Amino acid sequence: MTLDEELTSVPVPRSLAKRRADARQRLETGFQLWLATGSDGRGAHLIPVAYVWDGSVLYTATFAGSRTVLNAKAHPRIRVALGETADVVMIDASASTVEVADIDDDIAERYAKVSTDPRTAPAGRFVYLRLRPRRIQVWNGFHERVGRTVMLDGRWLESAVD
Amino acid sequence: MTLDEELTSVPVPRSLAKRRADARQRLETGFQLWLATGSDGRGAHLIPVAYVWDGSVLYTATFAGSRTVLNAKAHPRIRVALGETADVVMIDASASTVEVADIDDDIAERYAKVSTDPRTAPAGRFVYLRLRPRRIQVWNGFHERVGRTVMLDGRWLESAVD
Repeated sequence: MTLDEELTSVPVPRSLAKRRADARQRLETGFQLWLATGSDGRGAHLIPVAYVWDGSVLYTATFAGSRTVLNAKAHPRIRVALGETADVVMIDASASTVEVADIDDDIAERYAKVSTDPRTAPAGRFVYLRLRPRRIQVWNGFHERVGRTVMLDGRWLESAVD
Repeated sequence: MTLDEELTSVPVPRSLAKRRADARQRLETGFQLWLATGSDGRGAHLIPVAYVWDGSVLYTATFAGSRTVLNAKAHPRIRVALGETADVVMIDASASTVEVADIDDDIAERYAKVSTDPRTAPAGRFVYLRLRPRRIQVWNGFHERVGRTVMLDGRWLESAVD
């Protein structure tokens, strides 16, 4: 923040490039997210859960019979939040399941460092979820409502669309 | 944490009374929450939003035409998270809408201190949401999976149910 900005106390929205970089950094350095899923007739479910990011996809895991997994199978368009309510990376993603036997070793090893290891549980108890971001929005207050979108249709944006 | 606990590094789950007290404190001292809503056919939506707590009900507000409001009208059973992914107060609540003209002055005054004031926007642009908790669960890790429930059927629990 420059002295002028500080004196006038007007919050300055981050540039698209800065928000893109902040989203990537959050994805790379974080290890827990909020995962919202929905089902016909029962409304939404929401859980906090660990994740790993491989540069283009998020992996998480939870109980195979949980509402989260049943919802994600019925409605693969899920919504993920990273960060805090006042400084958000909001991700609309497509979910698919990956059986424990089919997960990449590297992903499984990394996941085991941030959560319970699904590979050590009885077979069929856990399942991994693969979350591919389609849209990512980044904001930290009302002054950043414009220019929130940093990824659209799965592509990082080079110029603003909102 | 006692020295013995520190030496063995076993995390000790909080008592029901302590979790109840922590939930109440979080409700009273916080001012933003995660709100997950669902609709038939489109899965879940999730937003961060400001709130006020009147001792038994949460009030928030958002755009009258938003997915959140449309979802909450279609499926009033919504899900709210307070706190962080590693230290959660998870609330299943019943949502109803309150028009700006009908909101209690006290609630509106308090809400205006933590967010944009819906009363200053053009008529019909915003609506308040009244969220009545039905179930509240409190946990800060796998070791607290048992005994998470501190409110059930809208009543604070005196003894554990899970």
